[in-house]
Amino acid sequence: MTIELSHLPAVDVHCHPFLDPGEMSVERFVDAFSFSGGGVPFMTAGGLPHDQALIDEVQGVRRNALYHRYAIRQLARFFGCAPVLAEVVAARNAASRDYANYTKALYGACGLATLVTDFGYPLPAVDVDAFKAEIAAQVIPIYRIEPLIVELLAAPIGWAEFKRRYDETIVDVIQNQGFYGLKSVIAYRTGLDVSPLSRTPDQGLQALDAIRRGIGGNAMKKLRDHLLCRALELCMELDVPMQIHTGMGDYEVNLVACRPALLMDLLRFPTFRACKVLLVHTGYPYHAEAGYMANMLPRVYCDVSEGIPFAAHAAERIFLETLEMAPLNKVCFGTDGYTMPEINFVGTMLGKQALGRALQRLVDEDLLDKAGALEAGAWILAENAQRLYGFV
Amino acid sequence: MTIELSHLPAVDVHCHPFLDPGEMSVERFVDAFSFSGGGVPFMTAGGLPHDQALIDEVQGVRRNALYHRYAIRQLARFFGCAPVLAEVVAARNAASRDYANYTKALYGACGLATLVTDFGYPLPAVDVDAFKAEIAAQVIPIYRIEPLIVELLAAPIGWAEFKRRYDETIVDVIQNQGFYGLKSVIAYRTGLDVSPLSRTPDQGLQALDAIRRGIGGNAMKKLRDHLLCRALELCMELDVPMQIHTGMGDYEVNLVACRPALLMDLLRFPTFRACKVLLVHTGYPYHAEAGYMANMLPRVYCDVSEGIPFAAHAAERIFLETLEMAPLNKVCFGTDGYTMPEINFVGTMLGKQALGRALQRLVDEDLLDKAGALEAGAWILAENAQRLYGFV
Amino acid sequence: MTIELSHLPAVDVHCHPFLDPGEMSVERFVDAFSFSGGGVPFMTAGGLPHDQALIDEVQGVRRNALYHRYAIRQLARFFGCAPVLAEVVAARNAASRDYANYTKALYGACGLATLVTDFGYPLPAVDVDAFKAEIAAQVIPIYRIEPLIVELLAAPIGWAEFKRRYDETIVDVIQNQGFYGLKSVIAYRTGLDVSPLSRTPDQGLQALDAIRRGIGGNAMKKLRDHLLCRALELCMELDVPMQIHTGMGDYEVNLVACRPALLMDLLRFPTFRACKVLLVHTGYPYHAEAGYMANMLPRVYCDVSEGIPFAAHAAERIFLETLEMAPLNKVCFGTDGYTMPEINFVGTMLGKQALGRALQRLVDEDLLDKAGALEAGAWILAENAQRLYGFV
Repeated sequence: MTIELSHLPAVDVHCHPFLDPGEMSVERFVDAFSFSGGGVPFMTAGGLPHDQALIDEVQGVRRNALYHRYAIRQLARFFGCAPVLAEVVAARNAASRDYANYTKALYGACGLATLVTDFGYPLPAVDVDAFKAEIAAQVIPIYRIEPLIVELLAAPIGWAEFKRRYDETIVDVIQNQGFYGLKSVIAYRTGLDVSPLSRTPDQGLQALDAIRRGIGGNAMKKLRDHLLCRALELCMELDVPMQIHTGMGDYEVNLVACRPALLMDLLRFPTFRACKVLLVHTGYPYHAEAGYMANMLPRVYCDVSEGIPFAAHAAERIFLETLEMAPLNKVCFGTDGYTMPEINFVGTMLGKQALGRALQRLVDEDLLDKAGALEAGAWILAENAQRLYGFV
Repeated sequence: MTIELSHLPAVDVHCHPFLDPGEMSVERFVDAFSFSGGGVPFMTAGGLPHDQALIDEVQGVRRNALYHRYAIRQLARFFGCAPVLAEVVAARNAASRDYANYTKALYGACGLATLVTDFGYPLPAVDVDAFKAEIAAQVIPIYRIEPLIVELLAAPIGWAEFKRRYDETIVDVIQNQGFYGLKSVIAYRTGLDVSPLSRTPDQGLQALDAIRRGIGGNAMKKLRDHLLCRALELCMELDVPMQIHTGMGDYEVNLVACRPALLMDLLRFPTFRACKVLLVHTGYPYHAEAGYMANMLPRVYCDVSEGIPFAAHAAERIFLETLEMAPLNKVCFGTDGYTMPEINFVGTMLGKQALGRALQRLVDEDLLDKAGALEAGAWILAENAQRLYGFV
Repeated sequence: MTIELSHLPAVDVHCHPFLDPGEMSVERFVDAFSFSGGGVPFMTAGGLPHDQALIDEVQGVRRNALYHRYAIRQLARFFGCAPVLAEVVAARNAASRDYANYTKALYGACGLATLVTDFGYPLPAVDVDAFKAEIAAQVIPIYRIEPLIVELLAAPIGWAEFKRRYDETIVDVIQNQGFYGLKSVIAYRTGLDVSPLSRTPDQGLQALDAIRRGIGGNAMKKLRDHLLCRALELCMELDVPMQIHTGMGDYEVNLVACRPALLMDLLRFPTFRACKVLLVHTGYPYHAEAGYMANMLPRVYCDVSEGIPFAAHAAERIFLETLEMAPLNKVCFGTDGYTMPEINFVGTMLGKQALGRALQRLVDEDLLDKAGALEAGAWILAENAQRLYGFV
């Protein structure tokens, strides 16, 4: 029993750009297709020899994630081949020789119409026009603040110039370069426990000075905290949303520093309340915290990406638990696809199936009527993101 | 498939008093009926103009919570009108002209017999007798310690007098004023991380002195921590339960400071172990922590209110996850209704349906037999609260 | 609908030894059979008289846990008696007069073949050979480091001798005494927030010196943190896995200090990445964190014990939420049975039923095919633990 959503267009509210990776070996396909994290380079940095046994071990970890099992079955159906990894990779290599038509067919099959794309990963940055040229979908570019911070830290400049360039670059990318909003991964760097008092430029001045003089201490956190506050202010001035990473990420993330509730003091502060903020990954596995914040704070939104598809079975639970408190008009579908179009495809297939089951369950529990469930499906899959970012 | 509980009487173990609000506009109904938090006043305090667009935006947030959707459908059935907000409000305004009969009909329809009522919210306090006169249900008054603390802080008195009045007032309300127990919302103020060492009166003396002399620092937390310890001691002396807010609340709450596990060091301390403590809201969304504590600590109980009904779809999950560890005789039904009788009505309807499904699932999983499930339903809906508070 | 697993052999990857307790009164059976924690001795240490009313109260708490209800029904079926506590205890007392045949019949009925047994609890330690002689199952002994730490602290020795004996004892138990790996309950003592920098032996020297001189401070945590790091290093040298307690435990545990995510900084540190680590109890109720770590960190595994069976209804959820991110080849079944064979029996019955339902649900959601589900069942019930510990 499910609400049928397969015919609806989908907007992927959080993903990354990529270019045609060309033909892939089975191992390379598995690596690129998996959730980022504990791969062979990670292990060898731990002192182990980079030998075939280690490759096999890490491949075994990746191939036994439920996400991988599901994805192989979905892709096999798309290609019309047996649900066996080697056959899927062979079919993929054959089909992707005509890359533009391949992505068009993939996205057409799952109904993926738009990619709200964070160009801050991977680095060096993929060219926006090159990505648009290869992808048969609408591309809505998002600008990540952390590469800009790295660039400004590397320049031999003081705070006045740092601040001027930071502001000017952000204003320029939004007003002149076609970006629709900002993104921050401060969760990966110094954590989400950001005091709203960090917004005084004096904190930036003090922190940059300490960094320049090699004092360190907590200076990098103070600088990043200030720059996040400033980015929120610029988002309000420019009337664009801010995406903030919450919850799980790659192996650099410590979940303890990433739970959405850590943002509460910042986002409820009078100065920042009016900012539209998208809690990326709805803080998986703390999605109930994110949903609660979307209920409490009128301009906070939830994005279900990354948990969908990489946490596989979690997809229905992520929708349902986020919607316990988050209003139906504040939850957006996404995949966090970051290396190849197959992730966005698999995520969209999984997301539609899981959302259909979730909405049916809400109807069964008398929380929604059927018409309301269909409307909510269209909102979550596409319209909430369109309204948030102001495109159609 | 569900265990049928609709015929059973229910005790609402945690809610608040209210008086007839009179006729309500649609907007006012939505505001008063919703989970407290990010409304228009909250947003305008952030610097936005208080205009119609903002009203519409906040109303949109509230009307799209699943709780709202469910509630409108339940009320429409009660009134026999279409499940459309305007019609429900019109029917409600018509029916509530005879307020006493209206609340009687509402509570009769859902089987709500008793309200264990925290008179510490809203302020100024609703008169107990006035509330009893308007509500066709048994009222069991609970006394909240925080308004008393505010009153004593405002008085020009030193610690000896502060402590004397604090103790005397609490003893008086329990022994002479008809209150059945205490309640604390320290989670909203200085958080649940309370050291059991705070019980020495010297901590109160030191902290009040620091506050009086304008030193501040952590003095307010130290004073509140001590006064919570003292309230626990008084509860043991007077043989009444203590309610402690855990988990979600309005926008003043930071979830990080409210998880039930933060209370572990306090409640397992030898001095406090014998105190009956009700973990209000079973710490949603950390209800598994609350259930665990109810298993570990023989006199700790769980109250499922607020998550039921405001987290709507969560209701079944709250029961099931709390009962993973919490014994069947330690979980109490509640709604946290706080402004109007419709919330208690909707919460009771939702709670009975969700508990019925949860118990059926436990039977399906062979964890309970059917007789045990029916008995557990009666306990959770009413008898556990009756035993805890000593009324029938 | 369920994947049938009852015929498969099971390995209990985390449990404790016990000897024939002899005939038991109903009260004693309930105490020994329940999840450890808030019993009568705990309450009386709180100042209450040790009287019959208190015994009844605590018994009431224990008998109303869903775990107890389920267990009585399962045991009644095994004995062919009515599902009534007194009859089950009588049947158990009769059957267990021939203790060796009784445990053989119990384990045969549920298909429990192997016990990976932590001999560090209870204390004084049960003799390995005595346990093997009484139990009709393969016993794989595990060595807990904390009793060794207590013993070395009690000896009048300095750091050089402490360190030498610590290392030598661990090497000896693994190489000569038949132990298959180590276990730590540092979560119970000083918490899981262990810095990888603790691995320098100088930290051990400094901490032991502070302890010996009665300085205290944070010295005990620093010593334990260092010794955990050293144990991880020894596990890598000896090529055996390390078990680390995460999540719930008895009343000494503060959940706040036990969430698995606290281990992230330690386990991703280059020096420790290659160590095989089993997150005991998969961090219930934070099992999604544990599953995430098993995805991120190639040599981190999850053990579902204690939640299964003591959190009863949680069993299916623990499997499903752990498997959201944890690969199928990284999750191991266990019970944490710690006083009597009936706990391991009930845990294995519950675990197989819950895993069967969980796998069926994954098939229904198209995340696995049926053959993959059956294979995963065999892995999780036994083969993952066999591969991890290197036995058959």
